[in-house]
Amino acid sequence: MPMLNFQNPVRFDFGAVKKLPDALKREGIERPFLVTDRGLRDSGLLDRITDVLDDTSAATIYDGTPGNPTEEAVTEALESYQGNDCDGVVCIGGGSPMDLGKAVALLAVSGGPLAQYDPLQGGNKLVKGIAPLIAIPTTAGTGSEASVGFVISMSDGRKLTYANPLFLPKLAICDPELTLGLPPMLTAATGMDAITHCIEAVLASPVNPPADGIGLDGLWRGWQHIQRAVEDGSDRTARWEMMMASTEGALAFVKGLGAVHSMSHAAGRLKDLRLHHGTLNAVILPTILRFNEDACSDKYLRLRQAMGLPADADLAKEIERLNANIGLPSGLGEMGLSEDLIEDMVPHAVNDLATMTNPKQVSAEDYAELYRIAM
Amino acid sequence: MPMLNFQNPVRFDFGAVKKLPDALKREGIERPFLVTDRGLRDSGLLDRITDVLDDTSAATIYDGTPGNPTEEAVTEALESYQGNDCDGVVCIGGGSPMDLGKAVALLAVSGGPLAQYDPLQGGNKLVKGIAPLIAIPTTAGTGSEASVGFVISMSDGRKLTYANPLFLPKLAICDPELTLGLPPMLTAATGMDAITHCIEAVLASPVNPPADGIGLDGLWRGWQHIQRAVEDGSDRTARWEMMMASTEGALAFVKGLGAVHSMSHAAGRLKDLRLHHGTLNAVILPTILRFNEDACSDKYLRLRQAMGLPADADLAKEIERLNANIGLPSGLGEMGLSEDLIEDMVPHAVNDLATMTNPKQVSAEDYAELYRIAM
Repeated sequence: MPMLNFQNPVRFDFGAVKKLPDALKREGIERPFLVTDRGLRDSGLLDRITDVLDDTSAATIYDGTPGNPTEEAVTEALESYQGNDCDGVVCIGGGSPMDLGKAVALLAVSGGPLAQYDPLQGGNKLVKGIAPLIAIPTTAGTGSEASVGFVISMSDGRKLTYANPLFLPKLAICDPELTLGLPPMLTAATGMDAITHCIEAVLASPVNPPADGIGLDGLWRGWQHIQRAVEDGSDRTARWEMMMASTEGALAFVKGLGAVHSMSHAAGRLKDLRLHHGTLNAVILPTILRFNEDACSDKYLRLRQAMGLPADADLAKEIERLNANIGLPSGLGEMGLSEDLIEDMVPHAVNDLATMTNPKQVSAEDYAELYRIAM
Repeated sequence: MPMLNFQNPVRFDFGAVKKLPDALKREGIERPFLVTDRGLRDSGLLDRITDVLDDTSAATIYDGTPGNPTEEAVTEALESYQGNDCDGVVCIGGGSPMDLGKAVALLAVSGGPLAQYDPLQGGNKLVKGIAPLIAIPTTAGTGSEASVGFVISMSDGRKLTYANPLFLPKLAICDPELTLGLPPMLTAATGMDAITHCIEAVLASPVNPPADGIGLDGLWRGWQHIQRAVEDGSDRTARWEMMMASTEGALAFVKGLGAVHSMSHAAGRLKDLRLHHGTLNAVILPTILRFNEDACSDKYLRLRQAMGLPADADLAKEIERLNANIGLPSGLGEMGLSEDLIEDMVPHAVNDLATMTNPKQVSAEDYAELYRIAM
């Protein structure tokens, strides 16, 4: 079975979940804290994981993860972790349970409050370590299983990105079997999250050719297979390739991300609208591709090549066409956003970690205009 | 300054050697063992490294590395390491000093003899650890600074590949400044080593898409810049890109290599001929590209794309054309090999670690024929 080891060990293939019991033993985890959400529990996916465990009675299950992980949910989960004397975290799900689990693992060892670890405020110096952590994605996806970061909606309204190599899971178990039942809308949204990661990572300003290579390979796979995965979720090849594109997106975004993510994070804070991170990325991506182009047109050649497009193809139009083909909205307005919300979102986008690595400087005025265009 | 971290930390840019004193401190190395060869000493390149050290008197220099590292030289170097109570290894040079230094670091901590660590004989179980190791390449190159392996010509005549993640240097310092003076012939030969690593890694049988992505990026860079680096060694961009292609080749060959390397290693054992590993790779590569094609023609599409060649380009011919353009021989006969040596080389090629990951099975008869063709 393929074992990839670039940022962290990644067991990748159909049936990989069977590696969980050995992994728990190897990490010395006897009382695992399983972090998931109610949807995964109800769908029966959680059973697929607990079924492989030698002793389910030793595991504590937290299924209260909201759509976007919040500081309140982290606190609630941590209390359960500590109350049950757990000694390791297993995250099962999409980005939310995985990011929430990372936060719990951090606080369990390094102590709260969470906000002190903000990397933009020198918070990484304070990280002592995290509890042993194993990540099992069920979407394709955020790539959080192979990334140094996690994003939490804080109680004060900010959506903060935490990033530190110590946050890497000890093991990622990538089993595409777990995504066979992912419905078309989620397949499309999480698939576009993966594709956006690959694109924004390649365009990001830091110099890191191996990361570019990985991102372009992920883009090549994702672009080829996303529509198939949406139209026929039982296609095992499409599911394998989309999960690989997702993991590769995270390996690539060690470089950082860009304005798409800054804008998505800022919009994702608006709890009532329950906007999906992947869908936001898909909808905003064309606007940012147009905005960034004059700063990195040489990289656009490589993107087109990875996507199998002619050298003069209009990347933004191609993303718009794909979004339409896979049933995603064509604008933020369609998702429930409106221009009156722009004033609230802009400062959060400006301050987002991802803005620092956008290939082009983005001012508050730029973000306001970009939101208007993306409506 | 770019810090890449995929297999191990890699400091990469002009001036990176200045990071050496801090790295020594961080690794707790107070009495470093500098492994190099006489050519590097005579050329003044070694001074460039010792010049940045705070205290050169604490360093021991071993400059007896032969053209291909031998078990005898490892033993001799180890005696000097232990006799001078050294506490860490710094390898400076092409593949030979780097591989010799890795072997010394291994024996210093895990004990001799070297042969017991043969991975094909279960030797990896016996590895306890290695001395702290920092690698500074001066060619572009073997990529040994970012690889888990090293190759030693054993006293019994075998050329053995040792491979273990524990052999990764704690830090690779990739400073293209050190290659500005590399003569055209060595630039061509080591550049083709890098290109061959990228190609053989992509074609290798294990499944590892991130490694493929890195290998294709390295191939893209190497293919574009090798001729320039040969024709004008002072071209800093070409030197930077060739060193990056070299490091990426090693990051990619975590997948393993192939028949080119098996044949090069077997030929490289013949001490009197003093055949350069990179030149051997360059000369043998077209023959193996023809041999392998029907087993992995889908991957050839990606290779052509990375090299900017048309979809129907003849890869083997393109390599032959490049070899001619950069002054490399067109056949093994030109290098001093002859058909009567084939019988001796074939069993070594068959048993080489790299044969296990060639995309197509290679029998002894195949190797004999391949050597004949490559003459």
